[in-house]
Amino acid sequence: MTTLMNRQYYLASRPAGAPDSSNVPARDVPVPEPADGEVVLKNLYISLDPAIRGWMGDDPNYIEPIALGDAVRSSVIGRVVKSDSPDFAEGDVAMTVGAWEAYTRVPGVMLNKLDEAAGIPLSTYLGVLGPTGLTAYFGLLDVGRPKAGDTVLVSAAAGAVGSVVGQIAKMQGCRVVGMAGTDDKCRWLEEDLGFDAVINYKQCGDYEAAIRVACPKGVDVYFDNVGGEIFDAALLCLNKFARVAVCGWISTYNVPDAPGPTNLWQLVAESVTVQGFTVIDYMDRFPEGIAQLAEWVVAGKLQFREEIVDGLDNILPTFLRLFDGSNQGKLVIRIPEE
Amino acid sequence: MTTLMNRQYYLASRPAGAPDSSNVPARDVPVPEPADGEVVLKNLYISLDPAIRGWMGDDPNYIEPIALGDAVRSSVIGRVVKSDSPDFAEGDVAMTVGAWEAYTRVPGVMLNKLDEAAGIPLSTYLGVLGPTGLTAYFGLLDVGRPKAGDTVLVSAAAGAVGSVVGQIAKMQGCRVVGMAGTDDKCRWLEEDLGFDAVINYKQCGDYEAAIRVACPKGVDVYFDNVGGEIFDAALLCLNKFARVAVCGWISTYNVPDAPGPTNLWQLVAESVTVQGFTVIDYMDRFPEGIAQLAEWVVAGKLQFREEIVDGLDNILPTFLRLFDGSNQGKLVIRIPEE
Repeated sequence: MTTLMNRQYYLASRPAGAPDSSNVPARDVPVPEPADGEVVLKNLYISLDPAIRGWMGDDPNYIEPIALGDAVRSSVIGRVVKSDSPDFAEGDVAMTVGAWEAYTRVPGVMLNKLDEAAGIPLSTYLGVLGPTGLTAYFGLLDVGRPKAGDTVLVSAAAGAVGSVVGQIAKMQGCRVVGMAGTDDKCRWLEEDLGFDAVINYKQCGDYEAAIRVACPKGVDVYFDNVGGEIFDAALLCLNKFARVAVCGWISTYNVPDAPGPTNLWQLVAESVTVQGFTVIDYMDRFPEGIAQLAEWVVAGKLQFREEIVDGLDNILPTFLRLFDGSNQGKLVIRIPEE
Repeated sequence: MTTLMNRQYYLASRPAGAPDSSNVPARDVPVPEPADGEVVLKNLYISLDPAIRGWMGDDPNYIEPIALGDAVRSSVIGRVVKSDSPDFAEGDVAMTVGAWEAYTRVPGVMLNKLDEAAGIPLSTYLGVLGPTGLTAYFGLLDVGRPKAGDTVLVSAAAGAVGSVVGQIAKMQGCRVVGMAGTDDKCRWLEEDLGFDAVINYKQCGDYEAAIRVACPKGVDVYFDNVGGEIFDAALLCLNKFARVAVCGWISTYNVPDAPGPTNLWQLVAESVTVQGFTVIDYMDRFPEGIAQLAEWVVAGKLQFREEIVDGLDNILPTFLRLFDGSNQGKLVIRIPEE
């Protein structure tokens, strides 16, 4: 029996700001044989998401922090190379919560088999048809609750979540305004995705003034991916009974002592609801969401961008690009098959 | 025709911190005769509420700020002394949005007639059967949405709103924990109102630790009257899918540059909803609320404290007692009839 060696990026220490290679070094360890219904995947795609930064800390979170010494947790898609599960054969492709590693060993019951023959690019299941697409779908429709004619403001609008939020909001008959950090991203939102207005937040100067110009009737739904000063400015522009869907606060994850927002008095002034959520809250409705998202993708109503970077050893510097905004859409590491 | 002279306390300048007599001086002006369906009330009771402090500022709010030069807006109960309205006769007693003044002239359509013969103390209509009782009723039941078995935490729990919130939560089958600022208030909550636990926030030291001790199963509903550090600490103690009903943030009203909360990441970690509201949002359901509150009061299920201070000229120092917590329940100015 061949013993496979596993390259892993693991959490050696909890980062204070941006994680570096002392926090997340590499190691090579043997992959134990599968037993008791387990399967070993050779990973093909590893998802990079802002939420992973949260799991590297030890603050209470919606799932357990990554334990020190464990490989960094991440969604992965891999090909079965060894199986002790009756449900999986060598060669099958499946998705699971794995880690930043070449091989993932996992109980078969934790795997979702993917149909490689369906012609849908596998990486899509980590993005628009996976966690980020579902986050957008449930976060906008269930938390944001947009009505036709509402103004919907989206931050990190060119990201894997924000770009889907904006397109679904357009389909609901809303006026959609996106905030992004480059002119190229803003052009894509306006020209390709049909956003009604865009704000380049790195060049607009005063956030509140820019939002008021782009949203002359105020904001009914703010889908917040960034937090910090943009969240605080958006609060000032909310209409009566506005909803704020808090998906994540990427601007603060690497900033340990970020000051808190100062405009929360708007909650009472305008009877605003601010609601945090994670996609896990909607797990029992994933089939509904995936079916709807797939229908829209196939019909050409939902566009998406992916940026696929080859090579497991590029994973940490690629992950950090989420935080400087240099990625273009859903960010995925690919490990090419020989 | 007698020209009545009106003692008014009016907004001469907007206060930065606590308002003083230079911000809110007195003046004596003639009361114009009623015309076109108007009525003149001689005020008997004037309600003192934390929200009035918000209207003294010029930040956007749920209703217009008080204009400079106008008498300070407040709910009042008065006796009709002159009437040009077919619906009101001299001697009738009615409630309206009036001001810190001896006489209020108002269109008859803005008045709610009260039945003096019903045997309910008139001041009650400014408190438990009025704005503060209704704030508690709708804020707890519609915004907080408690379920039997939930732990409900209430700040400013001995106040006119908080004390009603806690008693309604008990009737819903919840475990109720109140925070108040004196041992006497805490005793009242526990011994007379049946709260399950109390926290004297001025003596407890670390707020988070005190809340965790008093709420060993975490907090499902936090009814927030105070904001500031207590809000920030309560965030850390929330359970999954907790609801925070933001009624007002009295701790910050006189503090212009209060720092923002730093624990809002809990919104995503625990999928929390933070919802601001005002009683005005529920105006179309006031009859339902008043009927239910009155039923509970008559049945002895809902207790309340009022502190009635005689004399219009005591109004400003009495108002300030809301902010040092020295009042005992609903605070009302009475202007005795000769």
